[in-house]
Amino acid sequence: MLTLHHLEYSQSFRILWLLEELGTDYELKLYARNKETYQAPDEYKTLSPLGSAPVITEGDLALAESSAIIDYVLDQHPESNLRPAIDDEDRVRYLFWFHASQGSMMMVLIMEAVFQILIQRVPFWMRGLIRGVLGQASERMIKPRMEKLLQLAEKDLAQKPWFGGDKLSAADIAMSYPMESARSRGFITDQHPNCLAWIERVHQNPSFQRAKEKDGKDSIVLQV
Amino acid sequence: MLTLHHLEYSQSFRILWLLEELGTDYELKLYARNKETYQAPDEYKTLSPLGSAPVITEGDLALAESSAIIDYVLDQHPESNLRPAIDDEDRVRYLFWFHASQGSMMMVLIMEAVFQILIQRVPFWMRGLIRGVLGQASERMIKPRMEKLLQLAEKDLAQKPWFGGDKLSAADIAMSYPMESARSRGFITDQHPNCLAWIERVHQNPSFQRAKEKDGKDSIVLQV
Repeated sequence: MLTLHHLEYSQSFRILWLLEELGTDYELKLYARNKETYQAPDEYKTLSPLGSAPVITEGDLALAESSAIIDYVLDQHPESNLRPAIDDEDRVRYLFWFHASQGSMMMVLIMEAVFQILIQRVPFWMRGLIRGVLGQASERMIKPRMEKLLQLAEKDLAQKPWFGGDKLSAADIAMSYPMESARSRGFITDQHPNCLAWIERVHQNPSFQRAKEKDGKDSIVLQV
Repeated sequence: MLTLHHLEYSQSFRILWLLEELGTDYELKLYARNKETYQAPDEYKTLSPLGSAPVITEGDLALAESSAIIDYVLDQHPESNLRPAIDDEDRVRYLFWFHASQGSMMMVLIMEAVFQILIQRVPFWMRGLIRGVLGQASERMIKPRMEKLLQLAEKDLAQKPWFGGDKLSAADIAMSYPMESARSRGFITDQHPNCLAWIERVHQNPSFQRAKEKDGKDSIVLQV
């Protein structure tokens, strides 16, 4: 049986949601972050060669990398329509957002998170200087890129309610973590009504709610 | 007909290689970077909503995001075995590296590139300080992550010659750009013999060589 190793406030929440949406049998193991450093416990870091969340294990297999896990789980569930078929009219839209989730959204968000960590970790006397340099870099390299993504999301979500088209798909599940992060970090505002409506739609989804219950946290992303 | 908009020294080289490997008809448009800033020309930035490379166009469709383009093109070529089928023994390995290419390798490489840009752009008097802070961050956050990926690549490539297993697959095509970048930036060294042998194997591939001819550059990544 497949075991999901779920690290609290991490990208692995998406796999929890996916498994709940599929209604399949799986074992869930929960891991807490260090309360001071927010790091994953050492036990988690040795689960897979990358040391990162999410990880699933099944027999001898230990698989990391969110999108690879999503495709692997969907391979085992050909009855599911979470991955639109090649001839589905929503296929291209699905492919774009499914891949943009890690390839663009998470990329921008992790860069911004690294900048924040850098600002907090430098000695106090150079904090102003570093904040200035990284703040400028953020204005020039991070914010415009995120805004382009959000504008495209606004446009696509104006046409159909889900990232994958008319129905909930794995593209929406993949996008849930970066979209919550983008809202939490102030990138998504009242200027992005369709993004906010999509987040609300996600929150109302029964399988998302079941996943949240098993997760047991107020938010799927860390609020710091 | 599909048009590939190929920006020199960019991730779009992979799509050029993919199309050559498939031996399909396509139109190729080449775009040069600004010789001083290395930026894409304005004309390129308006091709797709994200403004980034690669982009393909086909009728009304303008599609960005490397991995989405690869899946889209492969959807149109069901006869190709570049994407191992669900029941193929190499399927999981394929999925991991296909997704790790953007989700992990490019993520780390782009972060390192951003650090380098920051060091070069700050006024001379604060360059030493910024180099110190970002150098430390690179040692702590970037290099260990890249080394874990490369060690895993060493292990997997010791078992089978390609990232996707016994045969060339879209995982190898996806990995070509980050692997060349990782070598060019000094992450891949003599300590990674299987990675070096894989790069050599790629260079000997006939379709890669045809793509290089159409590209017309010495290297697929910018050497700065």
